[in-house]
Amino acid sequence: MSSTAVAPPACLRRPLVVPRRFMFGPGPSNVPPRILEAGANPILGHMHPEIFEIMSDIKSGIQYLFQTKNSMTLALTGTGHTAMECAIFNAVEAGESVLTAVNGIWGERAADMAERIGARVNTIVAPPGGCFSLEEIEKALSKHRPVLFFLTHGESSTGVLHPLDGIGDLCHKYNCLFLVDSVASMGGAPLCMDKQGIDILYTGSQKVLNAPPGTAPISFSDRACQKIFNRKTKPVSFFLDLSWLANYWGCDGKPSRVYHHTGPISAFYSLRESLCILAEEVGDSARLPTVTTIVAPPGYDWKEITAYIMKTYNLEISGGLGPSVGLVLRVGLMGCNSSKANVDMVLTALKNALKHCHKSRV
Amino acid sequence: MSSTAVAPPACLRRPLVVPRRFMFGPGPSNVPPRILEAGANPILGHMHPEIFEIMSDIKSGIQYLFQTKNSMTLALTGTGHTAMECAIFNAVEAGESVLTAVNGIWGERAADMAERIGARVNTIVAPPGGCFSLEEIEKALSKHRPVLFFLTHGESSTGVLHPLDGIGDLCHKYNCLFLVDSVASMGGAPLCMDKQGIDILYTGSQKVLNAPPGTAPISFSDRACQKIFNRKTKPVSFFLDLSWLANYWGCDGKPSRVYHHTGPISAFYSLRESLCILAEEVGDSARLPTVTTIVAPPGYDWKEITAYIMKTYNLEISGGLGPSVGLVLRVGLMGCNSSKANVDMVLTALKNALKHCHKSRV
Repeated sequence: MSSTAVAPPACLRRPLVVPRRFMFGPGPSNVPPRILEAGANPILGHMHPEIFEIMSDIKSGIQYLFQTKNSMTLALTGTGHTAMECAIFNAVEAGESVLTAVNGIWGERAADMAERIGARVNTIVAPPGGCFSLEEIEKALSKHRPVLFFLTHGESSTGVLHPLDGIGDLCHKYNCLFLVDSVASMGGAPLCMDKQGIDILYTGSQKVLNAPPGTAPISFSDRACQKIFNRKTKPVSFFLDLSWLANYWGCDGKPSRVYHHTGPISAFYSLRESLCILAEEVGDSARLPTVTTIVAPPGYDWKEITAYIMKTYNLEISGGLGPSVGLVLRVGLMGCNSSKANVDMVLTALKNALKHCHKSRV
Repeated sequence: MSSTAVAPPACLRRPLVVPRRFMFGPGPSNVPPRILEAGANPILGHMHPEIFEIMSDIKSGIQYLFQTKNSMTLALTGTGHTAMECAIFNAVEAGESVLTAVNGIWGERAADMAERIGARVNTIVAPPGGCFSLEEIEKALSKHRPVLFFLTHGESSTGVLHPLDGIGDLCHKYNCLFLVDSVASMGGAPLCMDKQGIDILYTGSQKVLNAPPGTAPISFSDRACQKIFNRKTKPVSFFLDLSWLANYWGCDGKPSRVYHHTGPISAFYSLRESLCILAEEVGDSARLPTVTTIVAPPGYDWKEITAYIMKTYNLEISGGLGPSVGLVLRVGLMGCNSSKANVDMVLTALKNALKHCHKSRV
C-alpha cells in the first residue's frame, strides 16, 4: 500500500454492542424477537420464486392492514419519506396544482417535496394541534383546483388524529386525488382506505407494525392509477416510478417481471412476519392511539425529564417535533409495546421524573 | 366489520420458510451468519447516541473500502439505484449537460435518470463487452462540456472491468465531476477513490460486502461538494438531498443533527459487521474478480442450464442482463462465497449441466 492509503479503522475492531431499550417514542418501536428472527433468515435472490411469493403475501397483508382491494399495493424500499415522495412524484407533474394541509411537520415536508418537482403548491394551515373542517377543505379545493390533496392522519408532531370521513368524496367532487400519510397511525387507529375514498395511502414498517425501519407499505386506487399511467412526462425518479414498481411487485398483470432494483430481502422477511402477527390478532385488540402527547409540565426542562427516564429506566419517550418542540412530551405505545404493564411503567417513570428533576418556581 | 371489509389473508397463516441456497449470481451474495446475527440485534432509536456511533464506524469503514479521506462519506437508505439517483440528483441541475458511458445496462439507466430531471444528456456508446479509451472520453468531454461524467467500473451485465486511471484527471481538465458506479466491483477489484480522482463513488451492500440489500455506501469529493452546495435550485428529492443527509450523518460539521428520515437501524448493524470483516482481512485476499461472464455454450438453452443447476445444486448462477441476455452465463463469487471449494462446485455443476441439458445439433 502507498503512504496515502487509508488503513483499516480501529473502531471496526470493536464488536457491535447493542443495549436493550424500551422504545416508547413515536417510532421506531420495539421489534419482537419473532420478527427479528424472521429477518435473520438466509438471503435469496430478489427474483427467486420464493421471494415473489413472499412479496405476494406482503401485498395481501397490506391490503388487509389498509382495508383495501386495490391491486396496486406494495412495499417500497425505503422509509415513510420514500413513500411520501413516491406518491407525489407519481401523482403530480410539473406545473400542476397541489394542496397540502399543514398542521404540523408532515404537511410542510409534503409541500417542500411537491415544490421541488415544480408543482404549484398551496397550503391550508391550522395551528399545531388543530384540524381542518370539511368546509375549509372544500373552500380550498374549489379555489386552487389541485390534482392532489395531502393530509396527515396521525400528526405525530402534535398528537392529532385527523378525522377522514367525507374528505375523499369532496376531493373526487373536484377531480382531485386524496393522499393520506398514516405512518404514525396505521394499525393503531381505525382507517379503511376504500370506504373512506383514499386514493393513495402509505405507512412505515417501524411503527405499529413493529418491523425494523426500511420498508414502506403503499397502495394506489384505480383512480390514482388512471392519472399516473396517463402522465405526459416521466416521474423524476426511476427508482420510484410506479410503472417499474408495479411490474416488480406483479401488480401490472404482465406475465413476466423485469429487473428493476434489488429489493431488501431481509426486510421483506421481517415485514411479512409483522403482517402475519397482525393477521393473527383478533378484532380490534391493537387499535389504541399510538402516540400520546402530554403537555410538558410547567416549570420543568423537558429534556431533563426524557434524559432522566432514559438513564433511570432505559426507556425512550420523546419531546416535541417541529411546531411542538418544547411544548409536549410524546409517548408512543405501538404494536407489541401497547400493554397495560408498559403504560404503568411509563406512568411510574413520569411520576419519578417529576419528583427527581429540577423544577423552577413558576 | 361491514360486508366490504377485507379479511385477514390465509397466506399469512403459513410460517415463513426460507431455503438455504448458494448465491453465486451477480448479487445478492450469501450473507454469513455473523452478519445475519448482527442484523437481528434489538432496535434502537435513529437518533440515539449508540446509532450515531455505529454510523460513524460505518463512515470509517467506507472510507477504508473506498480508499478515500472524504468527510462526505455515508450510507444511503436504499440500493445501488438509490445511490445512482442520489449522485445525479445532487450533482446536476436541470438544463446542465451530462455525459454517460454506455457499454451495458447501467450507463443506460444513468442516462434515463439524468433525462428525468431535465439534464441535457449525451452518451458515448461501446458495444456490449467493450471499453472506452482515454481519447474517446476526452473527445466527448471536449465536445459536450458536461458537468458530470458517469462510468461503470464493474459492468455486471457484460463482465467488463473498466480501467479508471487517467479519467479523473481528464474530467477535471474539463471542469467535470467523475461519477463511478462500483456496485458489482467494489471490494473485489482494486479501486482507490482519491488516487484515481473519482468525485462521486457508490456501491451496494449486497455484493462483495455480503450484507443484505438495503443500504448503499456513497462518498463525495470536496470538488463534488463544492458544486452541490452551490446549487441554484434544490435537488428534486428531499429524501436524497445531500444537505440533509450530510447533517444526519454528521458530515457537515454542525453541532447538532436534525431529524431527516428514520435510518434502517437493523441494516446499519449488518453493514457495520460486514465492514468489520473487511477491516479484519489481511491485504488483498478478497480481491478477486466478482462476476465472471462465460459465453453461453452454443446449442444449449441457457435457461435450461441455470434451471438445472438451481434444481440439482440449489445454486444460483445467472444468464445475461440487458445487452448480454442470451449471450452469456454469469457467475458471481463475492466476499465469503469467493473460495476454491465454491469454484470447484460451480465447475462441477456446469459440467454436469452440459451433460444433462438438451443440446441441439449445431
